[in-house]
Parts: sequence; structure tokens; C-alpha cells
Amino acid sequence: MIRTFIKDLKGQVGNSVRLCGWADRIRNQKQLFFIILRDHTGLVQLIHEKKSDQELTDIIISLNRESAIEVEGRVIDNPQVKLGGLEVVISKINITGASAEDIPIKADSALEHRLNWRFLDLRLLENYLIFKTQTVIEQAMREHWLNNGFIEIHSPKLMGSPSESGAELFELDYFGKKAYLAQSPQFYKQMAMAAGFDRVFEIGPVFRAEPSFTARHATEFTSVDIEMSWVNSHEEIMDFEEEWLCYIFQRVESQLSKEMRSLFGRELTIPKRPFPRIPLLEAKEIVEKSGHQLPGDKPDLDPEGERLLAKYVWEKFRHEFVFVTDYPIEIRPFYHMRHNNQPTLTKSFDLLWRGLEITTGAQREHRYDRLLAQAKEKGLTIEGIQYYLDFFRWGCPPHGGFGFGLTRFLMQMVGRKNIREVTYLYRGPNHLRP
Amino acid sequence: MIRTFIKDLKGQVGNSVRLCGWADRIRNQKQLFFIILRDHTGLVQLIHEKKSDQELTDIIISLNRESAIEVEGRVIDNPQVKLGGLEVVISKINITGASAEDIPIKADSALEHRLNWRFLDLRLLENYLIFKTQTVIEQAMREHWLNNGFIEIHSPKLMGSPSESGAELFELDYFGKKAYLAQSPQFYKQMAMAAGFDRVFEIGPVFRAEPSFTARHATEFTSVDIEMSWVNSHEEIMDFEEEWLCYIFQRVESQLSKEMRSLFGRELTIPKRPFPRIPLLEAKEIVEKSGHQLPGDKPDLDPEGERLLAKYVWEKFRHEFVFVTDYPIEIRPFYHMRHNNQPTLTKSFDLLWRGLEITTGAQREHRYDRLLAQAKEKGLTIEGIQYYLDFFRWGCPPHGGFGFGLTRFLMQMVGRKNIREVTYLYRGPNHLRP
Repeated sequence: MIRTFIKDLKGQVGNSVRLCGWADRIRNQKQLFFIILRDHTGLVQLIHEKKSDQELTDIIISLNRESAIEVEGRVIDNPQVKLGGLEVVISKINITGASAEDIPIKADSALEHRLNWRFLDLRLLENYLIFKTQTVIEQAMREHWLNNGFIEIHSPKLMGSPSESGAELFELDYFGKKAYLAQSPQFYKQMAMAAGFDRVFEIGPVFRAEPSFTARHATEFTSVDIEMSWVNSHEEIMDFEEEWLCYIFQRVESQLSKEMRSLFGRELTIPKRPFPRIPLLEAKEIVEKSGHQLPGDKPDLDPEGERLLAKYVWEKFRHEFVFVTDYPIEIRPFYHMRHNNQPTLTKSFDLLWRGLEITTGAQREHRYDRLLAQAKEKGLTIEGIQYYLDFFRWGCPPHGGFGFGLTRFLMQMVGRKNIREVTYLYRGPNHLRP
Repeated sequence: MIRTFIKDLKGQVGNSVRLCGWADRIRNQKQLFFIILRDHTGLVQLIHEKKSDQELTDIIISLNRESAIEVEGRVIDNPQVKLGGLEVVISKINITGASAEDIPIKADSALEHRLNWRFLDLRLLENYLIFKTQTVIEQAMREHWLNNGFIEIHSPKLMGSPSESGAELFELDYFGKKAYLAQSPQFYKQMAMAAGFDRVFEIGPVFRAEPSFTARHATEFTSVDIEMSWVNSHEEIMDFEEEWLCYIFQRVESQLSKEMRSLFGRELTIPKRPFPRIPLLEAKEIVEKSGHQLPGDKPDLDPEGERLLAKYVWEKFRHEFVFVTDYPIEIRPFYHMRHNNQPTLTKSFDLLWRGLEITTGAQREHRYDRLLAQAKEKGLTIEGIQYYLDFFRWGCPPHGGFGFGLTRFLMQMVGRKNIREVTYLYRGPNHLRP
């Protein structure tokens, strides 16, 4: 018999169906068994009258919670049942994957403990919806890219030399040589511009050997990267990102708004274009005017500064997003292009959503001589990046792009406070298992 | 002025346009300059009459081949021009990325040399089409999955213990502990089944520390993985893969057949369902009957055997694909399910396309006790995989899936003989740069 998903039972009243799922809860009453069955599409009540079939009763007696079961039964209308106003009278049950008696996590277990038993934690329907949301987000991203002439690349994660900085790199032995895990596809997506690929995207893992324990950092995460040729400024990249984000929001809204409302209690607001754009210098003034003293040693916003800026932007523009632009060269990598008329400022931006940085982007320096000079100025060892600098020696068009943190975006989208909750299997300094 | 792509010039005859691309060739005649301009969509001839504009002439004199340029000009009809029957009379030219004089690769450079200058090699329009084909293939894959209830996962590439075998693993220091690079997402995609995710897919990098120099192996490549729950046999997985492949072929055919014909000289044949399925034992008999003695020590087909089997299948069924099924337990991992009635054979398969293995799949053993016994029988250290075995202790449904080599598939699709040619940046024991 073909499997029916729980969400489709409404159309099957009166029919016999086959259901596959987990025994979410089991209630043993004097004459009746109630099983709440869960699949990835929902919950339904199953019912069995003990005296009607002793063999079936014996199977259900042996059934532990969270066992994987296949059930056949007849769908009946029952307005008193809260779960969809129907129930299924069991005619056959098969315990395909029996569960051990004691489940190692409980509803109120601490996050750290739940992460150790991630496969059980993920069984919550809210958690499934997080990854379903991620799926819709990613497919919307790709659709928009394909509609706009992008092609997909898979750049190598194994690199022969440190790219931008050696500090945050994982190192490994590679047949007697040293290799490094890519901390971003930056150099390789720019290579695609030098190769004439025009516009490229990549969604893939990046690695950061940072001993960081915050709620928004991980040692491995999924980076969303694009690069596009023949742009004249970072403003064009921001224009593109706005359009792309609105497309994503519209798709999530049209496909998932009902489920998100019911499981996350969230209403999506599709952002309005254009997004506010504020130069960093001005952003810092705004933050300091609201009474927050920024730390003197790093000329960037700190997390509290980002939060205050978001508050200001919301109050002034009723917008959840803000581009912070024109970062000074000290806090941007050597390959960011500089303003012609203000050579200490880069043609760069960050995008914050509700005070959390989700994107870093820029127009890149594509002129070999300037790029070389900027690399030297930053004190980089040219030898290790000569292969990268070569990309610009045989005709590279002007280009720019951004890197976007999928997990951070997802975290804001579903309203969680910690990227561990929206990462399939979180990796941090103390998290390498399961 | 908005950029026009070269492929769209036909509709612009009589108009002024802006083009962006590379100076593919430059011909300096007595009174005229001809430039063949290339963008990712094609080639077009640009023309400049020297005496008409001295300033423009001076710029073109300084122009090196392969420079990135922006050009404005008027499109004129010229049936004598082979490239599309039109040319563009230059009115303005801007050398946005000048090229050095000597290009380090030539049309007839050896593959190894071209790989060192991959960004120049990729400028060939045939190479762009390879990655455009890859893009269409991947998007078709995802569309079919989404149409069939799959969700996307990104499993970690950093693992705390060796998964299936320690031999081919890259090792690294992870904050004073040992970590390994995932050689497949196998364990983690099965975790999704234990988590109730029902059906999942992942396209991502995998790593193999194999000192292999063949035309079909790499130390890092893009693996396409799926896993699906509530299947009763490996036959169902093969059914799914056939349907999925036909969908991909149809999409490539409808979007790219014209370009593939003109640049690769290839006609696509959409495979017919069902694909032939031959148990390994029978496949070996077929190969030995055609006169090839299989090496005694490995009870699998060797590459020559795969080639001969493909020949047989083509002659007998006129089919380019063949599933080889029911591999003996010695050459399959411990987690492949075994046939109930033939416990020395697994419910597994490989898929060959024109004699090249592109898929390995199986129904998995989901019953904890049997899985544990099979792991012990293979001599595995249980401690290192206990976290994986745990997935099966609290209710895991029957499931199966496959791993599919994107580059091998692409290589066959575009008719290349070496995966180095269809990998964006190939990684092998001696290839870690660029």
C-alpha cells in the first residue's frame, strides 16, 4: 500500500491508509491504546481497542516511545480530536525500528546535552522546519542566480598556501607537504572572474580555526558566496543583494508562512527596497550619540554597537536591514578596492539584519599594480599569494561580490538565538562529535 | 549604457551597444583594426577604421590580446562575417584590465601545464560550457529532489573519528585533538534518517588521501549524496536514481543541446527506463566469457571488466547505463544490508555509465543488533563508531541511498577523458596549487 503523509490525511477520511513514522506518545487506557504518530509532515492520533485484536494489542504493549513504525488503518472523522479532527483506527502495526526504553534527552534538556544527541533533538517538528526553511532559502537563492546569468562553482577546500591570513587556518599534512583548509572561497571565486565566468556562486563549507565560543561563531560553517564581473562600484553589489534577498523572502513567505506562523510564532516581513546605507563613520557617530562608547583599539562597530545601530535604523527607517559602508583600509583585506577620492576608505560594506552581521562584500581591486602595492602595504608575503596576484596580470575585469553566512541568516529567519540550533551538526573548539 | 551580451547582438542591428569582454584576437591591417571580442556568451568581430579616429587608434595599438575591455559601438549587418553575420563598428574602447604581452599557455599546451594556469585555460568557451552544463545538471538534480520531498543538509567535513576506514583519511590538529576530513557524508546522511528527516540530499566536497594518479580519481571532489527512508529494498533506490537521471538528461537536453552540439560535437541520448540491472556474479561471467581474466584477489570488476560489461550491455540492450547489483559482503562496507535469503550478498549496487562507475548505493542495515554484529565481523573498533551505532538504538526506519560522483558524470556528459578537465581546480597528490 502506498504511504500517506500525515498532512494529507484530511482527504482520506473513510479510507484505509499506510502511515510511516515515530510513536511520539503512547497512552495506555483500560480499554484503549492511543498512539500519537509523528512523521515529518505532522502528528496524528492512532487508536486501538484492546479487545478487538489481541495480537495487535500485544505488539502495542511491547512498543516503546520513539520507535519507528509502519501502521495501516482506517481514517475516521472525529471533531473532538485536537490533532486535525480525525484519528486512525489501527488494523496493522509493524515495529520497523524499535527504540530503547530510555530516551537520553528530554524536552527541557540543556542545549549542550541536546547537541550530543542531535539526531534525537532534530526529531522535533520545529527543528525539521528549520532545515526545510533552509532548503527553501537555498533553492530561492539559486533560482535568482540562475535567472541572472550566474553559474555554480565548487572551489577546492584544500589550499597550498595560506590565503588572506595565517591566523585562523587549519593545517594538515598533504603527502608530505603542508595544506590549509580554505577559510573562504575568496581567491577562487575571483579566479572565476579572471577566467571570464562573468558571474558565479558557491554554497559550501569554510573553516576557521578560531577558539571562539560565542552564539554566532563556528569552526566550520556554510558560506554563501557570489562574485560578479563588470561592476562599477560596491553600490551595484548592494543593489544585487537587496533584490536577491527580497526574492528569497518572497519565496519563504509563499511556501512556508503558514508553518512558520504555527511552529515558530513568527510573521515574516518582506524588506522594502532600497535598504538604508550608512557609511561606517556616520554609523559610529550614531552609536556614540546613543551613549555607547566604542572600544578605541578596533575602528569597527562591536556587537553592542551593531545592536544600537539596528535600533536607530528601525526607529528612523522602519527597516530591519542596514548596509554599513566604506570601511577604512585598516580593517579590510588588501584586495578591497579603495575610493579614488578617499584612498583611506574601501568600496566595501557589511549587511546587518536586526543587528547581526550576515554579509561582507566589496568591489575588488582588479588592477595588478595597485593590488600588489596594497598587499605589500599590509605586510603580506607575496610569494604565497603570487598565484592569486597572477589572476590580475592577463586581463581581469572589474568585479565584486560578497560572502554571506547561511546559518546566521537562518537563525534570524526562524528566530533562534544561537547558531548551534540552526546548524545540522555544529562544530566548535569543543564540538567535534557526533 | 546597459551591457549587451554577444549572443544577443542579432536583435540589435542598427543600434549602439556596450559590450564587455576579452580581446580574443587582434588583426592589424593597413587601414583597419579587427578585434574578435569574446564574452561568456560568444564571439563577435569589432572593426575600426584607423583614420576615422586617431585617439581610438592609439588605444587599440596599445591593446594586448586577452585584455579585458569595454567597447561601445554600432552593430551592423555584414553577411560576409562568419561570426553571426554582423560586426560592431567601435566608437569607444576602454581597457579595463590590460593583459601582459606573453600568455603563458597556448592552444596546444599539455594538460598539466594548462592546469597550472587554470584561469587562462578556463577562458575557452568550451570550458565555460562545461561549467554551465554542471550548473544545469545540479539545478535539475535539486529540482527533482524538491519535487520529491527531499530537504538539503550540510554535514560537517570535520570529524572526530575515522568513519569507515582510516586508510584514506586526511588528519589534522584540531585544538590539540585529532580531527579527520570526511571521505563521505555517509554517517551523517544516515543520521538524518534517524532524525526523521525522511529524505535528504547534499552536494559537497569529500576528501580522499589516496595517492592516486588516474584520470578518474582526485583527493578532493564534489560528491552528490541522497538518503531516503521507508524503502524496502535497494531496487527502490535504483528506481529513484533512474527517474532522477532521466529528469537531469531532459533538462540538459532542453537547455543546452544546441550549444553542446556546436561546441562539443555531441548529441545527448536520454536513457530509457528501466536501466538494465545485472548481479555482480553474472556480470563477472559475462566479462570472463568475453575473454578477460579478472584479477583473482579482488572479487570486483576492474576497469577493463567495466568496459567490457558496458560493451555487452550496449550490444544486448542498446543502453549506456547498467546497474551492477548484489555485491558480496567482502567488498562492501559493514552498513550495507544483506539479503535475507543470501546472507553473503548485500542489497547494494553500482551504476556504470559507458563503463565508468558513477554511483555506489545500497539499502542500509537499520537494525542495531545486526549492524553491531556486522561492524564487529569487519574488525572495526566499535568505540570510534559508537556515536554512529547510536543512531539505530532509538528507532531508525529502513532506509537507503547513494553517493554519486559529480565530476565523473560531467566528464561522460561532455565527453572528456580526464576529470582534471571538468574539475574547476583539480586536487591530486601533486596538485595543491593554484
